[in-house]
Amino acid sequence: MNLNKVIFIMGVSGVGKSTIGALLSAELNIPYFDGDDFHSEENISKMSNGMALNDEDRQGWLKILNNLAKEQIKTTGCIIVCSALKQKYRDILNQDIIEKTNWVYLKGSFQQIKERMESRSGHFMSPQLLVSQFETLEAPKNAIDIDISLTPLEIINTLKNTLVEKSEFGLFGLGVMGKSLARNLASKGFKLSMFNRHVAGAEEDVAINFKNEFEELATSKAFDDLEFFVNSLQTPRKMMLMVNAGKIIDSVIEDLLPYLSEGDILIDGGNSNYKNTKERCDYLKSKNIYFIGAGISGGEEGALKGPSIMPGGNKEIYKQVQPFLEVIAAKDMNNLPCCTYIGEEGSGHFVKMVHNGIEYVEMQLLAEVSTILKTLGNNPDQIAAILESWKPSVNSYLLEITIDIFRKKEENDWLVNKIMDKAGNKGTGNWTTITTAELGVPSTLIASALFARYTSFYKEERVVANKNFGGNRNLKPSLTGDEILKAYQFSRIINHYQGLKLIFDAAKSYQWDLNLSEIARIWTNGCIIKSDLMFDLVDILREAHNILTNQKIVHTLTELKPSVNKVVSECVLAEIPISCLSESVNFLNMYSTANSSANIIQAQRDYFGAHTYQRIDDDSGKFHHSIWK
Amino acid sequence: MNLNKVIFIMGVSGVGKSTIGALLSAELNIPYFDGDDFHSEENISKMSNGMALNDEDRQGWLKILNNLAKEQIKTTGCIIVCSALKQKYRDILNQDIIEKTNWVYLKGSFQQIKERMESRSGHFMSPQLLVSQFETLEAPKNAIDIDISLTPLEIINTLKNTLVEKSEFGLFGLGVMGKSLARNLASKGFKLSMFNRHVAGAEEDVAINFKNEFEELATSKAFDDLEFFVNSLQTPRKMMLMVNAGKIIDSVIEDLLPYLSEGDILIDGGNSNYKNTKERCDYLKSKNIYFIGAGISGGEEGALKGPSIMPGGNKEIYKQVQPFLEVIAAKDMNNLPCCTYIGEEGSGHFVKMVHNGIEYVEMQLLAEVSTILKTLGNNPDQIAAILESWKPSVNSYLLEITIDIFRKKEENDWLVNKIMDKAGNKGTGNWTTITTAELGVPSTLIASALFARYTSFYKEERVVANKNFGGNRNLKPSLTGDEILKAYQFSRIINHYQGLKLIFDAAKSYQWDLNLSEIARIWTNGCIIKSDLMFDLVDILREAHNILTNQKIVHTLTELKPSVNKVVSECVLAEIPISCLSESVNFLNMYSTANSSANIIQAQRDYFGAHTYQRIDDDSGKFHHSIWK
Repeated sequence: MNLNKVIFIMGVSGVGKSTIGALLSAELNIPYFDGDDFHSEENISKMSNGMALNDEDRQGWLKILNNLAKEQIKTTGCIIVCSALKQKYRDILNQDIIEKTNWVYLKGSFQQIKERMESRSGHFMSPQLLVSQFETLEAPKNAIDIDISLTPLEIINTLKNTLVEKSEFGLFGLGVMGKSLARNLASKGFKLSMFNRHVAGAEEDVAINFKNEFEELATSKAFDDLEFFVNSLQTPRKMMLMVNAGKIIDSVIEDLLPYLSEGDILIDGGNSNYKNTKERCDYLKSKNIYFIGAGISGGEEGALKGPSIMPGGNKEIYKQVQPFLEVIAAKDMNNLPCCTYIGEEGSGHFVKMVHNGIEYVEMQLLAEVSTILKTLGNNPDQIAAILESWKPSVNSYLLEITIDIFRKKEENDWLVNKIMDKAGNKGTGNWTTITTAELGVPSTLIASALFARYTSFYKEERVVANKNFGGNRNLKPSLTGDEILKAYQFSRIINHYQGLKLIFDAAKSYQWDLNLSEIARIWTNGCIIKSDLMFDLVDILREAHNILTNQKIVHTLTELKPSVNKVVSECVLAEIPISCLSESVNFLNMYSTANSSANIIQAQRDYFGAHTYQRIDDDSGKFHHSIWK
Repeated sequence: MNLNKVIFIMGVSGVGKSTIGALLSAELNIPYFDGDDFHSEENISKMSNGMALNDEDRQGWLKILNNLAKEQIKTTGCIIVCSALKQKYRDILNQDIIEKTNWVYLKGSFQQIKERMESRSGHFMSPQLLVSQFETLEAPKNAIDIDISLTPLEIINTLKNTLVEKSEFGLFGLGVMGKSLARNLASKGFKLSMFNRHVAGAEEDVAINFKNEFEELATSKAFDDLEFFVNSLQTPRKMMLMVNAGKIIDSVIEDLLPYLSEGDILIDGGNSNYKNTKERCDYLKSKNIYFIGAGISGGEEGALKGPSIMPGGNKEIYKQVQPFLEVIAAKDMNNLPCCTYIGEEGSGHFVKMVHNGIEYVEMQLLAEVSTILKTLGNNPDQIAAILESWKPSVNSYLLEITIDIFRKKEENDWLVNKIMDKAGNKGTGNWTTITTAELGVPSTLIASALFARYTSFYKEERVVANKNFGGNRNLKPSLTGDEILKAYQFSRIINHYQGLKLIFDAAKSYQWDLNLSEIARIWTNGCIIKSDLMFDLVDILREAHNILTNQKIVHTLTELKPSVNKVVSECVLAEIPISCLSESVNFLNMYSTANSSANIIQAQRDYFGAHTYQRIDDDSGKFHHSIWK
């Protein structure tokens, strides 16, 4: 451990200074020195001749110990055992380093110590000497008083808890995101404890190595022992878990529970499923431990420089962790933190899940427009240039990184050309699609984006199918860059409508009190889907939850519609796959159809399954059944 | 109860015939007669004068009882108590009705009966009379022997179980589907017990009223008492549950369990979620009860005339119920039953779920092509005529009923015009979409069809959106009926590909040994998605699981593609919503792209989240990470 201070253990002869010093040294893993080993030869010969040292004799010796302490502070700190009975001795020992010393005063009565010494075999001390020590003793004022009737183990535990300065915030799990958040927190001046498990051969000394790597972590504490980690935190403890979502969170919770105290707060900063977050809130509440499910977006860089944070759980409990989360979050255009209390239970993770759903679609749309641009004959640099020219209309973080991606070269080729076209997924897109099906909300674009990734995984089948079906693809779509831009713009608005609608409908289902405008606001910076469009949505959502009823949006979509119609139509004829662009058009067409063909489906259901139907000429909502043939 | 037979209770005086007769009568709810009440006046006066009756005296009396029995058999049957000590007396009683009588012989030792009589107050019988009775007694050969040392309750229970003829098959739940299946089973000659719960004011006497309504149910037994229902079945019992899917199945199972015996078989014939079916199999197996999850398709009419049945579970257990299921199933073109063992666990319900997913899409495609035909100016009769003309190319049950639907008139208007355009769903489409997301299979069409139903539910929003966005819809697509037919044909093949692919991938995930060709075969008749295409698929699937690799299919799709491209393109320009048609095109375009734009998504993921990517020039499959800027 890096304690960066010196612990002096003082007291009269026979109180057990050496024993406690040695045990504490082993426990804190810092060096231990016995002051008596540093006497000058003169002092030694004086003492061996039975002569007592006077204060002048001690002067030089105490200076030596003070220097020893100064040296040790530069590295890990240390423990020095020394009777130091008078205040003036202690003043010398403290010289220049008083802020970095701790004094432990082992305290017992004359009778206690006398009995203890008599029971020790091999030791002899005259009662007179003990009397003289007690006469000399000036009890220290700013020391940690330790009653020597305690067992050594009790003493060590007390000292460990007292001496080691408690951290304000704990970070559990030092993966890519955990490390970035830790550096972010530490750079804001928070006293941090960091933990990473020890896995022999795979994860060894992760926390300490990480601490040593970055200057801002100098005052942070690094652990691979769970108990020490937990004990190093001020109570009520505040601890963020940055581990992979799933069952592992439950096992981490079980591992932590024995060391936690009532009132402690765990924050799950991973991409956990919102249903599990609710279950964990309930489970831990039964133990008076609190759980905050906080969605965090921004990737590695966002986590370091300021992510968007979506915390959900009990509002009063959230207030206790609010200062930490708000300070590390990104700032919006008004310098307000991109972190806001979302709502009860798993609502924070729900909103983060939908954020990722929107992200899936934003990524897929960029992939689709890039495909169109490529089919039109543009190379990656040219595509980058076109996308660059789109920035004034549709700037976003994802657009920016896509431009970087198309520009990245490796030797003489573009790197993007070397990347295997199998798109991975880590669950949130999948959950959003499942949720959409469960809640009865037609989030068609996220499903399309998810399925596009799934289809990409059929690489071998695709190659075969290309031979069978791809033979005649030489038709180039007749499209301008502006038309493609407008199609992209159109689909992005539909995507944001669908994502926000999913949140709105979920809030109704789960009785969460969510503020869509605030959610859009904390998405204006720090997160992966930050964009100029998001800025506009903050205001629009203040007026109405359904952005498709906003007249500015209506106007924009109406203006864009002919272009997106043309783009989709041309791409279909040219056999360019554009599921998301296409689905956005179909969705608005369907959504703006007053009388749809669903009547035919109701008739079919009633025909074969007697499922009944409602009638447009019967306001009562009654269900009817017909014999159709 | 309708027992349709006569139970004679015989034995010497004092064995308790009247007691047992009265109790059994109450229990079986059939009349009870004491033979002694039917003596002629002559016999009565002879007996009251202390004279014993001789066999001649008895002759007429026994004839009267035989006539009484004959009369009673015509209604519910009855119980007749009569000592009938000699075989020749019994011969008279059995005359002409021996097939419809049951004999109960209450049997005790002389000592037993003597003691019992002595202990009865108010009764006196001389030991001499008892001696003479025992001398006369000829023990019957074909009677149910009852030891009178049993309690009356034990005797009644034994008799109930023995006398009431056990049914071969039980049907639990008489909703639309349950009733149809019951009639189907009964009409095939199975002895059936039927149960429907009693809910005061809502479901009263459902089973008995249903039984009385249909002639084929004359030999079936109707119950609203669960215990009687279960006890009326031959062991090991075979019982089909036809109740709403969901938690109610579990509560039905819990209600049944106290009455079931080891080895009994429950068949869940509802649309249960396949995951629940697996759990129920496991749960019941721990109690040595067996569970078969059988998907049943065909709607009300199919259930009655022959549905398609998809049973899953333990194969050996299935063999016990196979005769029932195969006989009631529809027959394919070779007269084989449209019922085949699907596979382990919940695979039967899984396959039924996908069946319904395919059905959702088939219905949506018909709704979409109808919308196009309507937009082109056709009225319902004209649409029906066009669809009718499609039969030679794409006939199917759903096409046929859609034609009927368009033709159905009410007063002077078509009924379809009066139906509210909000399409309901009962869960299987939703589950299929969820499953597709969970298993990583891009079943894009089923998701589109589900979302189309969800969107239809936003009726009020749609009406508003129509005002905002629907203003300029006057462009008629330039399409021929033949092009629309070909688009429909194309999308149906993609739909069937996706459904079968989902089954194939699930079989891999769950290690089920499924036969896709057999599954297609049992879908050629009886079920909602039966079609001419399905016939072709039976053969195609014998060759390969992926129908898109079949050269005939490749040829067909290639021929249809220009038409579906044109239809989708024209509809997009005319703003006609056609999610499923459109998605089928996009899917094949995506599926047949050898090098897709998924590389861009992988680059984006690596850029912001360090998720890494694979390279096309690195066969090792290693994951790479780049610093992109």
